[in-house]
Amino acid sequence: MPNTEWDTLFINTRLATMVEHTSPYGATDADCLAIQNGRIAWIGTQDALPSFTRPSHCVEIDMEGRWMTPGLIDCHTHMVYGGNRAEEFEMALNGASYEEIAKKGGGIISTVNSTRRASEDDLLAASQSRLKESLRYGVTTLEIKSGYGLDLENEIKMLEVAKKLGEQNPVRVRKTFLGAHALPPEFAGDSDGYMDKVCKEMLPTIHALGLVDAVDAFCEKIAFSTEQVRSLFKAAEALKVPVKLHAEQLSNLQGAELAAHFKALSADHLEYLDERGVKAMADHGTVAVLLPGAFYFLRETKLPPLELLREHKVPIALATDCNPGSSPVISPTLVMNMSAIFFRMTPEEALAGFTRNAARALGLSHEIGTLEVGKQADLAVWDIDHPAELTNSIGNASLYKRYFNGTETPFN
Amino acid sequence: MPNTEWDTLFINTRLATMVEHTSPYGATDADCLAIQNGRIAWIGTQDALPSFTRPSHCVEIDMEGRWMTPGLIDCHTHMVYGGNRAEEFEMALNGASYEEIAKKGGGIISTVNSTRRASEDDLLAASQSRLKESLRYGVTTLEIKSGYGLDLENEIKMLEVAKKLGEQNPVRVRKTFLGAHALPPEFAGDSDGYMDKVCKEMLPTIHALGLVDAVDAFCEKIAFSTEQVRSLFKAAEALKVPVKLHAEQLSNLQGAELAAHFKALSADHLEYLDERGVKAMADHGTVAVLLPGAFYFLRETKLPPLELLREHKVPIALATDCNPGSSPVISPTLVMNMSAIFFRMTPEEALAGFTRNAARALGLSHEIGTLEVGKQADLAVWDIDHPAELTNSIGNASLYKRYFNGTETPFN
Ligand SMILES: [Zn+2]
Ligand SMILES: [Zn+2]
Repeated sequence: MPNTEWDTLFINTRLATMVEHTSPYGATDADCLAIQNGRIAWIGTQDALPSFTRPSHCVEIDMEGRWMTPGLIDCHTHMVYGGNRAEEFEMALNGASYEEIAKKGGGIISTVNSTRRASEDDLLAASQSRLKESLRYGVTTLEIKSGYGLDLENEIKMLEVAKKLGEQNPVRVRKTFLGAHALPPEFAGDSDGYMDKVCKEMLPTIHALGLVDAVDAFCEKIAFSTEQVRSLFKAAEALKVPVKLHAEQLSNLQGAELAAHFKALSADHLEYLDERGVKAMADHGTVAVLLPGAFYFLRETKLPPLELLREHKVPIALATDCNPGSSPVISPTLVMNMSAIFFRMTPEEALAGFTRNAARALGLSHEIGTLEVGKQADLAVWDIDHPAELTNSIGNASLYKRYFNGTETPFN
Repeated sequence: MPNTEWDTLFINTRLATMVEHTSPYGATDADCLAIQNGRIAWIGTQDALPSFTRPSHCVEIDMEGRWMTPGLIDCHTHMVYGGNRAEEFEMALNGASYEEIAKKGGGIISTVNSTRRASEDDLLAASQSRLKESLRYGVTTLEIKSGYGLDLENEIKMLEVAKKLGEQNPVRVRKTFLGAHALPPEFAGDSDGYMDKVCKEMLPTIHALGLVDAVDAFCEKIAFSTEQVRSLFKAAEALKVPVKLHAEQLSNLQGAELAAHFKALSADHLEYLDERGVKAMADHGTVAVLLPGAFYFLRETKLPPLELLREHKVPIALATDCNPGSSPVISPTLVMNMSAIFFRMTPEEALAGFTRNAARALGLSHEIGTLEVGKQADLAVWDIDHPAELTNSIGNASLYKRYFNGTETPFN
């Protein structure tokens, strides 16, 4: 009889393993999953259990038929920021023009100012309350970008806060350096000069501090050109740091193609992506990260090219884009619903978007994103009868239990 | 010095009283609110406090500058139902036609079947988990409709469950009889016959059981005609039960005008409402209840006539329409955000929609909906810096404390 060193055994559960090319949701006959040392040690049916000798410390938990999925992965967020943008939101709805709002200090610069002004502790407290809400929706891995500091000191502050969030909570945090998010007021009229500083001073310094898991930029007419992004990507490449890009959100600058040529983990937004960009992404394994929250909040009408992405088999991830100005949303399941309503994504695609493909967008496919033996035991257990319910409801919370690294963690 | 019998005194709070025609959000200089016997006993400034002699049992609570609003009121829900509609949602997204879905038993009849099959206990348990989520968003009063039973026994079962929800939770439940929601299969081809049964048998019987606070119907080509609704409203009038109506959602049958002539509490949905209907509502004090969740979920493009409603000073309420088929949403703040994004309602209109005007839509203006001396102490306290934040975020939870009838009640 095989011996095991299992710490925990779940019985009577339904598994949406999300392993690709198997059955819908990667569901199988297996109704048991075992954890050992924080990793998935075994998946099988209850019939097979008698043949295993389990240690006395192994805890058996009956999930009473509930569905288990990989813990959710939010692969694109700006969750660390100071202040909020409610007053300019209200001004706009009361009829103020873009100019009037800009005059009153609205727009991204408002968040930059609030973030620069905030102490690290205040920034941590504000972000912590958002993260708490995220955990409540089953998130076990989260990417957090800098990009509201726009100078060395404040970009470091943001990434330190991101790092602390990961250390102080049962969640895996990936830190992305987004110094090239917007032009800081100090460099008005000199975006080349700022990009130079980002490449030659900020990135190397912040990277040396161990705060950069990936490098990102905003490639758009109102932000940085493809040529500027190219120089940033070269600097990242020299440091062997993976890249990703905000691309084709408001126009088509062929940013996704550029990103793909640098073997980017992902290109994100993509409403204006064309077939050339889709092909480049397919060729280089770049994940398409779609952000329905921003599409909704900005009242966009141009849809990302779902059919082309499917046809060329580009993996599609979803993320909240959690940020104060264009996507103040935290719930992944709400974003899954929006992906169905606006983009006509299926519930299975939506769940893959927050699990398997989100893991890939973070370069973590080998560790998380599916329920497979050897992967981290990051698990979400849901009070639902069918995995499609996660996408069907408009963001209702239905998490029953949450396991991070094999350990159950409360979330209320 | 005036003596008081206050039970609780809140100090250092900011009050969005939502009293009309004062200041934005009805905010004043007052930073204190006192409760006595479950009602608001006093509102004023901290300066005035020394002149009051308070009893020793009076508890003083420092809100540390947080905003307090009236408890939220969700004035249109179908929260009691069996099953869910995730599988047909998934079928549709996988390309199934309306006919294929209908063949597999989809549509409202699927919910009718699940609701009829469910025991009262099962129905209560399923609804309880939804209600719990609602409370977490600061809801203190909730309307719940029948309408998935469509026969005497099952309509009673639904309303009994609604009643129990109110008895077993810190929330005020208003029960609406919606027997005229859809044609039950037993009456296929005989909607006049069914309406006759609703008016002559179901309504009087259920009313006699004390389960009817209001009578509602679905006035639409795919449901009941204005003539049929008129006979129902006459039956309700005879019993002195107030009426309301699902009107002008998919076409214009002049249902709102009919409802107004019966002094309806509200007409709900209203995407196709015209000026004639708006004027009738204004003349008779009928509240417009808008349901952005259904607008979103059904991907509607026809907007309700906001400008006309404002111009004719028709009070505008908002509600979740919480139901499994066309608006599976629970969070009022998410619906507030949708009202801004889709309908361009202001954050102040949105909050009035879930407080003052929702109270009016339930005929409860004298008891709830604003922070005024004498009203029920149903209060929501929020972790926000400005009331506009409630509408600005895409449904993020930010409730700090919740008081029902003067008593703090946990919500997690
Ligand atoms: Zn972003
Ligand atoms: Zn309804």
